[in-house]
Amino acid sequence: MIDKERLAAHLEAVRRGSPLVHNITNYVVMNNSANALLALGASPVMAHWVAEVEEMVAIAGALVINIGTLDGEWIEAMVVAGRAARRRGTPIVLDPVGAGATSQRTQAAWRIIEECTPAVIRGNGSEIMALVNSDVRSKGVDSSASSDDALEAAKVLAERTGAVVVISGPTDYITDGTRTETITNGNPIMTAVTGMGCTATAVVGAFVAMGDDVLLSATHAMAVMGVAGERAAKVAKGNGSMQIAFLDELYNLTGEVLKNEVRQ
Amino acid sequence: MIDKERLAAHLEAVRRGSPLVHNITNYVVMNNSANALLALGASPVMAHWVAEVEEMVAIAGALVINIGTLDGEWIEAMVVAGRAARRRGTPIVLDPVGAGATSQRTQAAWRIIEECTPAVIRGNGSEIMALVNSDVRSKGVDSSASSDDALEAAKVLAERTGAVVVISGPTDYITDGTRTETITNGNPIMTAVTGMGCTATAVVGAFVAMGDDVLLSATHAMAVMGVAGERAAKVAKGNGSMQIAFLDELYNLTGEVLKNEVRQ
Amino acid sequence: MIDKERLAAHLEAVRRGSPLVHNITNYVVMNNSANALLALGASPVMAHWVAEVEEMVAIAGALVINIGTLDGEWIEAMVVAGRAARRRGTPIVLDPVGAGATSQRTQAAWRIIEECTPAVIRGNGSEIMALVNSDVRSKGVDSSASSDDALEAAKVLAERTGAVVVISGPTDYITDGTRTETITNGNPIMTAVTGMGCTATAVVGAFVAMGDDVLLSATHAMAVMGVAGERAAKVAKGNGSMQIAFLDELYNLTGEVLKNEVRQ
Repeated sequence: MIDKERLAAHLEAVRRGSPLVHNITNYVVMNNSANALLALGASPVMAHWVAEVEEMVAIAGALVINIGTLDGEWIEAMVVAGRAARRRGTPIVLDPVGAGATSQRTQAAWRIIEECTPAVIRGNGSEIMALVNSDVRSKGVDSSASSDDALEAAKVLAERTGAVVVISGPTDYITDGTRTETITNGNPIMTAVTGMGCTATAVVGAFVAMGDDVLLSATHAMAVMGVAGERAAKVAKGNGSMQIAFLDELYNLTGEVLKNEVRQ
Repeated sequence: MIDKERLAAHLEAVRRGSPLVHNITNYVVMNNSANALLALGASPVMAHWVAEVEEMVAIAGALVINIGTLDGEWIEAMVVAGRAARRRGTPIVLDPVGAGATSQRTQAAWRIIEECTPAVIRGNGSEIMALVNSDVRSKGVDSSASSDDALEAAKVLAERTGAVVVISGPTDYITDGTRTETITNGNPIMTAVTGMGCTATAVVGAFVAMGDDVLLSATHAMAVMGVAGERAAKVAKGNGSMQIAFLDELYNLTGEVLKNEVRQ
Repeated sequence: MIDKERLAAHLEAVRRGSPLVHNITNYVVMNNSANALLALGASPVMAHWVAEVEEMVAIAGALVINIGTLDGEWIEAMVVAGRAARRRGTPIVLDPVGAGATSQRTQAAWRIIEECTPAVIRGNGSEIMALVNSDVRSKGVDSSASSDDALEAAKVLAERTGAVVVISGPTDYITDGTRTETITNGNPIMTAVTGMGCTATAVVGAFVAMGDDVLLSATHAMAVMGVAGERAAKVAKGNGSMQIAFLDELYNLTGEVLKNEVRQ
């Protein structure tokens, strides 16, 4: 169980500190991720040119790497940026979108893990399982894994990589292999909005940039996602208005609301 | 005239079957297209890396190719993915965005037609005319063609390519060269929302993935677009809220509403 | 001070003339920029392939170059398109996103300035200062410059380049080095919507395409942005609904409202 006062204080710290979050992410979600970070008071920058990523990551508080629309050149930029972040001690958050759907995605995720040592890996159940067991095949970018199997895989992945592993789902699991936190907020309509998981990864980036405990930071970020998503679902009329209401809820979310509504 | 019970059943089949639709599409509309597919219960994936497209198309129910922001590498990926889909018998839907605006676009569209044999080609009147008559020049990506001239061109293109050709407009035409269906739903404000045509192409992808008759599948998809667009236009206050209301209407659209409101 | 009748007439001219605006812009904002141009009745096209940009710019009324997610190939396409626009006398609007954040961005912006001679350069205070004084470092893509320092830099940049320079902020400054106009409309929530500055640049493109005086055209465009933003902020509940309400306001904006609400 997390300390709710500390959770509330962390949100306020992000709003006050306005960390620069450097994203190398996919085309589909760039707009949403940038708006979600702005809604929290963070400062997003998207930059993927291999010639400039080292300079950009040098001024960032966190690096978010998302392989949702990868290709060879983008992987090179991710690795170059990730190595630079590693050298500087800047935390990296990896989103292995579609791992298991194609072998290129699974391999790219593992290359980034090995060369850049991310602080956090966030995916859905299928993606996390595919990283641990190469026999698991995902159906595209959506999850079909059971949460028990996925949690087991998350613990194995955390132990093998040293990263905190986050699985998004009806219950979010956040584990370092030994300690596991859960967040049970959220609403199923979140899965009908493209890039909601990618947005969670970006939000984790903002929280690790302003936190010292990685497991707590990732848990706090997932609490923010879940509470904002749950509140947005109450006013959404479909997945279109859900995408917009979610940003509005993030924008207005206070530490007070967060600590009253979070459920573990 | 289409059978309205079959139309309603097709929508429900998409929702239940959740087909994976592999999109190689343009940067402008990726977010909208993904959300439109999710609103219908389909499962979108965007993947354009030449190294992975064959593996991705192998798990997809349809391939959507859209040349809206093309370049040389993307064309290669489109052709490689399209040939793989052709070998597997996976239906391809082509959106020749901006054909006629530059010669590269017209040529790229024809290369994809010849090497990949799409099941459906969907464009606006100017684009379809430009594919048939190289003297026709489009103004960018918007249409200025009369619907009579465009329908004539659509029939010629269908006969020449074996594809079902769809022209979006105040009246949508869906033709295989011999048989022609029409849908007269919709609202002019749809043309003020970027990528509404590209979204139609993606929706056609979901319907051909779950249908056996290509002409009917394309007609059903255009009925869904038209009815959702018409309903959304009633609550939209401008093109911003139109984009959002359209997704909400797609999300909530039932077979019952669809068969009551479709007009041919 | 600008003539308000002329401002209103210019907006109507854009709606009637529907200029084709060719954008080579960043992935984050393509959707918003296209919708903003459509909301004003303009006709947006996004095209970045070096093989086709000369042909596309040949049918455009203005070229918008935005380096927000640049890489080597995109810079080549920007320069090729920009040189073609220069030869044809088609006005170019440059958005030097993140100039000062990395040396590559500052250099790319200067290369485009020197080889393509933009009619307008629009940025935030930090970006404009970084172009004039290479010692200025931006924090990512957000501004931290004081408006006095920035205006001084804008005048220097205008004199050095021959471009009209626009600085967005609580007060927008539009200067050719000698004459300076201001617009004081707007609302702080605009800075929480990603790509609002990039959208301003695209809107400037539509106005220079339909105007003969560059300083006035840029001022008119910033008036439209400010008035629409101010009206949208009254109904927005957060940065999500702000993005949507802003498009709706642009869509419904009339010359009459514009001349009544603009403040200098």
